[in-house]
Amino acid sequence: MTEHIQFSDDQYALLLLDQRILPTREETFVCRTTDDTVYALQTMVVRGAPAIGVTAAYGCCLALREARSQDDWRSALAANLDKLERARPTAVNLSWAVRLMRALHEELGDVRAEDLAKAWLTRAKQLHAEDIETNRRMGSFGAELIEDGDTVMTHCNAGALATAGHGTALGVIYSAVEQGKKIKVIANETRPFLQGARLTAYELHKAGVPVTVACDNACALLMKRGMVQKVVVGADRIAANGDAVNKIGTFGVALLAKHFGIPFYVAAPLSTIDRDTPTGDDIPIEDRTPREVTHVGDTQITPDGVPVYNFAFDPTPAELIHGIVTEKGVLRAPYEASIKKAFEG
Amino acid sequence: MTEHIQFSDDQYALLLLDQRILPTREETFVCRTTDDTVYALQTMVVRGAPAIGVTAAYGCCLALREARSQDDWRSALAANLDKLERARPTAVNLSWAVRLMRALHEELGDVRAEDLAKAWLTRAKQLHAEDIETNRRMGSFGAELIEDGDTVMTHCNAGALATAGHGTALGVIYSAVEQGKKIKVIANETRPFLQGARLTAYELHKAGVPVTVACDNACALLMKRGMVQKVVVGADRIAANGDAVNKIGTFGVALLAKHFGIPFYVAAPLSTIDRDTPTGDDIPIEDRTPREVTHVGDTQITPDGVPVYNFAFDPTPAELIHGIVTEKGVLRAPYEASIKKAFEG
Repeated sequence: MTEHIQFSDDQYALLLLDQRILPTREETFVCRTTDDTVYALQTMVVRGAPAIGVTAAYGCCLALREARSQDDWRSALAANLDKLERARPTAVNLSWAVRLMRALHEELGDVRAEDLAKAWLTRAKQLHAEDIETNRRMGSFGAELIEDGDTVMTHCNAGALATAGHGTALGVIYSAVEQGKKIKVIANETRPFLQGARLTAYELHKAGVPVTVACDNACALLMKRGMVQKVVVGADRIAANGDAVNKIGTFGVALLAKHFGIPFYVAAPLSTIDRDTPTGDDIPIEDRTPREVTHVGDTQITPDGVPVYNFAFDPTPAELIHGIVTEKGVLRAPYEASIKKAFEG
Repeated sequence: MTEHIQFSDDQYALLLLDQRILPTREETFVCRTTDDTVYALQTMVVRGAPAIGVTAAYGCCLALREARSQDDWRSALAANLDKLERARPTAVNLSWAVRLMRALHEELGDVRAEDLAKAWLTRAKQLHAEDIETNRRMGSFGAELIEDGDTVMTHCNAGALATAGHGTALGVIYSAVEQGKKIKVIANETRPFLQGARLTAYELHKAGVPVTVACDNACALLMKRGMVQKVVVGADRIAANGDAVNKIGTFGVALLAKHFGIPFYVAAPLSTIDRDTPTGDDIPIEDRTPREVTHVGDTQITPDGVPVYNFAFDPTPAELIHGIVTEKGVLRAPYEASIKKAFEG
């Protein structure tokens, strides 16, 4: 797949494949300012924790470019970074990336704006490249968990479109396929934003991996019929105890997988693990606009005046997770200890 | 709510509120022939097991009217009834209604077509009236299970739009509200046909019952947060052992309800119980057109060339069901015995 996150040095702009309108149209969304980037993050032109991290890193560069024309560029920059960091609350990669850039600024001390710009752009490109490499390592560790002939269920999109590389959960699948294993995928459509139907199906189909889309509520029947051998999902934030917050519905899939004795794995880079947050219940769950639920395209599906819930994520408790696939290997319970070791090792 | 199933003696036509386009438009679909009725059933102009039963009864009358012009009207009628009976496979009320009409024909013996027409129309109207009365009795039995202040989750639409009366599952809720209990409802949107978002929300909102729509995959989070006290759903067919086949996703909701210790009830008239089918796994599950999953209105949500699953129902095992609300009272496990007693008593 063509890279969906590209930084153009010429235009000094971040070029994003607009994920809101996939799979039927492929259009580029151009970010030149902090507001552009915040808008792209909030409306989900780009989404997926690792992709949000890389976008935020480039977003810092755009924030600086914008602030440079101000007399007090440092204050203007700080305000821009605050805005960027608050764009979405759940995926920790957003604040992680902004924090890394801030730390580099501190390290450089009383630097000129143009030198900081150079250092930041280099660092952003490095984070971008690292994410690709991290994906690859996660893929090769995770692929060992998948057997030839497996049908793997995934929820939401934790693929190339959610990262800078070939994906976290889907990276595991792509790596298993590269190993010569015959793998089929069931993509839960993932209401309301339909990342499964629109994005996971799009990229797997493009890559030649057999994929079938199912409505989220078909999960129990498909599992009961023996049509699912493994579940692999991504994560937006993992707590210190191994609880994993991911797209709404993941928790239900994990509970059903447990009922049917199907192994349930989470694939996420260490940058998604937030050791400062003790449990999944401590992770903020984004409450998004009703419009995502009430309409699909231009079609209104709920009556006027009826409220809806649109919690974007849910926490899956560590005890339902058979393993967390990271770039340092597959972490196993007890996660408190294995996470600590992965960070220190 | 105005009756959504009406038979016009003047036009000799069945007038159905077109449920495919609710909640944004209210239009009448007119059936004059067997093909009209089969089309209305298959495309879900009308749906819901009891409503399918009443529609099929009137459909028999239309089938006869159509056959009367043929030389051998009995053969033509038989062919029409076969077509009607095969319109959809899962809800047993369809074949139940056609069987009742056939039995009446046999009872009347060598009857003239016009006399049979009179007898059938009277019988169809009687079934229609009985369904209203059955709903009312189910409502009053079921309302006892609901406590003041409960939030009740329901899946699909088992309301006025699914019956000739005020509904099965929603009948229980309407009756509880009539008793003065303060009840809130969470309507799972029920992909892919969105009966919850479109129909349950529509009729509850119209009736002044507070309803919030949730995507199907929010179920686990809502239950975990203590936002659901009871689950009440309808059924398309209940096996002799109490297994209940209902709209896809019901099985998952029942498993999650069990996990969270939330009582799960099924509300269905005895006409939905098929004592000839031993278990839920013996009930045929309709596999519907991919288009319902791939598109919402005119919006395509999956990429071209990607297959989808569209199983329309799933079986919930009897052991997950706390009670089956019928017009003869609330049946309890062991269901084999309580079902037998309800039919004989």
